[in-house]
Amino acid sequence: MSRGARLGTTDREAIMNEPTPPELSAARRPTAHSLRTAVKEGRTAEAVETLRRLPPVHRAELFVQLKPGDQKAVLGAAPPELTAEILADSDSARLVDALSSTDPASLGPAFARIPPDNLADLVLRLPTPHADRFLEVLDPAAREEVRRLMQFDPETAGGMMTPRYLSVPDVVSVGKALELLRGGPRPDSPSYVYVVDAGGRLVGVAPLRHLLLANARDPVSSTKVADVTKLRVSARREEIVDTFNQHHYAALPVVDDKDRLIGIVTFDDVMAAMRRRERDVLRGMTGIDPREALKETLGATRGRIPWVIVTILGGLGCALVGGLFQRTLSELVVLAIFVPIVTALGESIGAQTISVVLSTLAGGTMTRAELMRFALKEFLVGLLVGVFSGVVVSLASLFWHGNPRIGLLIGVAVFISVAWTVLLAVFIPGIMKKLKVNPAIASGPLVLSLSDFSTLFVYFGGAALFSNALK
Amino acid sequence: MSRGARLGTTDREAIMNEPTPPELSAARRPTAHSLRTAVKEGRTAEAVETLRRLPPVHRAELFVQLKPGDQKAVLGAAPPELTAEILADSDSARLVDALSSTDPASLGPAFARIPPDNLADLVLRLPTPHADRFLEVLDPAAREEVRRLMQFDPETAGGMMTPRYLSVPDVVSVGKALELLRGGPRPDSPSYVYVVDAGGRLVGVAPLRHLLLANARDPVSSTKVADVTKLRVSARREEIVDTFNQHHYAALPVVDDKDRLIGIVTFDDVMAAMRRRERDVLRGMTGIDPREALKETLGATRGRIPWVIVTILGGLGCALVGGLFQRTLSELVVLAIFVPIVTALGESIGAQTISVVLSTLAGGTMTRAELMRFALKEFLVGLLVGVFSGVVVSLASLFWHGNPRIGLLIGVAVFISVAWTVLLAVFIPGIMKKLKVNPAIASGPLVLSLSDFSTLFVYFGGAALFSNALK
Repeated sequence: MSRGARLGTTDREAIMNEPTPPELSAARRPTAHSLRTAVKEGRTAEAVETLRRLPPVHRAELFVQLKPGDQKAVLGAAPPELTAEILADSDSARLVDALSSTDPASLGPAFARIPPDNLADLVLRLPTPHADRFLEVLDPAAREEVRRLMQFDPETAGGMMTPRYLSVPDVVSVGKALELLRGGPRPDSPSYVYVVDAGGRLVGVAPLRHLLLANARDPVSSTKVADVTKLRVSARREEIVDTFNQHHYAALPVVDDKDRLIGIVTFDDVMAAMRRRERDVLRGMTGIDPREALKETLGATRGRIPWVIVTILGGLGCALVGGLFQRTLSELVVLAIFVPIVTALGESIGAQTISVVLSTLAGGTMTRAELMRFALKEFLVGLLVGVFSGVVVSLASLFWHGNPRIGLLIGVAVFISVAWTVLLAVFIPGIMKKLKVNPAIASGPLVLSLSDFSTLFVYFGGAALFSNALK
Repeated sequence: MSRGARLGTTDREAIMNEPTPPELSAARRPTAHSLRTAVKEGRTAEAVETLRRLPPVHRAELFVQLKPGDQKAVLGAAPPELTAEILADSDSARLVDALSSTDPASLGPAFARIPPDNLADLVLRLPTPHADRFLEVLDPAAREEVRRLMQFDPETAGGMMTPRYLSVPDVVSVGKALELLRGGPRPDSPSYVYVVDAGGRLVGVAPLRHLLLANARDPVSSTKVADVTKLRVSARREEIVDTFNQHHYAALPVVDDKDRLIGIVTFDDVMAAMRRRERDVLRGMTGIDPREALKETLGATRGRIPWVIVTILGGLGCALVGGLFQRTLSELVVLAIFVPIVTALGESIGAQTISVVLSTLAGGTMTRAELMRFALKEFLVGLLVGVFSGVVVSLASLFWHGNPRIGLLIGVAVFISVAWTVLLAVFIPGIMKKLKVNPAIASGPLVLSLSDFSTLFVYFGGAALFSNALK
């Protein structure tokens, strides 16, 4: 069966055409390590076969963890269909090294099977002379398609869209429309037919099923719905995810600034963006990628070291602060036993705020004013929680040690610590974003280290200042 | 235009038929508080109008935050189309109180518009006599459909599926198949036509577009693809999300244990499950729902108090441990200044492990053996990270204080703390799951509090044991 020219991300039909061996269950899925070993030991064919039996997304995740040389070896040995699927599903940033040293001509048959939006992502990443050589292996029509898509920022609707959609002029009959569709290329989302006017402007959408149900002589515009949810070509990724999440659409049309239809974004790209977003939020909170489960022990350990070092530096900073106030500490040993409660409250409330801030930033299309309002609200929440825990902790320590002044000091330190940590948690991700550093890199570890450090400064500093009153 | 009887979750066509006023931008979306105020002050119509202008999912999220009485008032004032959409999109557990005190007959027109899978979820939650009265307002065919769905666990493919799909017998021609489809009810996923044999068994899937392209006299089986990815009716929610995430399908067929087609699960239910999963992981790490941004300040503060109390109790436990060893502490004040580094390392590595464990549990369909292997690996990672940080910290404290024995104590305490915390982080979510407590409730705060407590015990205890050697 050869009904189409390509395999790829959204191409359910083509994927189904190829009978695949039974998939490996989650239980028996290999790790990047075992794949790497297979390639290194010359068992490339075996590695290819293993990849072929994995579900597409898992396969792509493993593939990008191979070294560029191993990636190249696998691509060289895989049939063009599999190569196309791997390249289409993989994070293009992690393919650059392998592709830059590969002869474009050898990838021609695979390239012909990759959807144009994925191909544009890929080619955009390559260094210029190499990118041009890759474009040359495409046939002229596909090259033109990819070049057009390459004009758009990959993080916008323009970069996420595919130009392969079904559309018909609004003046034709249903019968003529069906005829046009039969002759046209395969679309990436087969359910919706977009209706455009003579200027190419989007004037409605007709579910394919409406066309089937209608009389062949009816005008196509009688089957269309005029009120269409659409995306501007410049819409950012977060806004697109938000729109799909708020509705239940399998695809949305993309229009340019003159309201002309230029592509569609399909739900599966949005699901991929949602997965990335979830990982980003978790990574922002802890400093590591939750897909650690895919890595072998040593790789996972290596991935954790950078933020272990940040935590150690933060801890040494705390020790420095403790050292500064060592005299006060030796006079008031009771201070030491409340260190964990003072720091833990700041940290745990900081972690809560970080999770709210990161998921709001990741999910949001907020204006500056909204962001400020959100920040203010989170800070108020922090103040209130700070008052609450300050009062509870000072009462607890009062009953315990019967020294109201130490209780008060601890309560005030807790209050200041919580309020200040919430402030850090609200603003550090924003500042990182402003400095073009992804807040997903490690807002969490930074905020918590800074919080511990400044909390102890306030706590010990306050004790030193009022040490005569506290004894 | 009235082409169908219902509006609902996956019903893109019907939703589009109704021209809606322009949606409120994210900037001007109301909070639950402002809605509640509007209802309380008798401005119900205004509240309904506001809800109508919100995107469906956001609308449902706000609605369930209203008090049952307010929910009832809004449902009473909303047109049946809107009521149907609200009920279909909302978390059914949070509608029970309002529905239990509502006259089922008044909701008849809305119920007729809710997809059967959502209706089954809803009715399953209601107390028995009330559930029966709600079923009675449905027409007999719909009632039968809902009753059938109510037999399945809502957390399985059976509970998530809709019985409204397109299917045709494998023996008919393409022309006959199209005719059958024209006469049939509206499907929830219009792109795929499932082909079944005389026994109702699923034998293939034909994309609707293949049927359009084929000759009317061809047998329908010539357009089908036989290798179909399908879900068993008992497949758990995590497995379903995993399958959708690993492929790029807009809908998957559900079969019973005799391979008979009984429904389909559509991508939008999976997107909703992905959103829930992301929230569950974040809530598991911090104890709070990251949708706090939707709540007003006081509500958000209240939501944080329970885990603030857990943290305070944990901190008081730490103070208790410190109190036990107060003599050692007053003899070796230098111990106090290393408390933050010892606890912070356990905490930060514990948070990393918790994030990996929760996202793996949430995403996974792991067997017992795999889980044990995963746990072992995470524990090994913890041991290695523990060795690394133990060595670094003991070296740092040695250079600082020139006392190799204190350095060694601190290093060993860090190592034990990290390894033990990782063990807690791996097993506490699993134990909670075993005890039928959702690990998403607060694995994170529990693990970190227990970690601090036991870390200090080891650290101070070790110091007391060897206090003569340390001086």
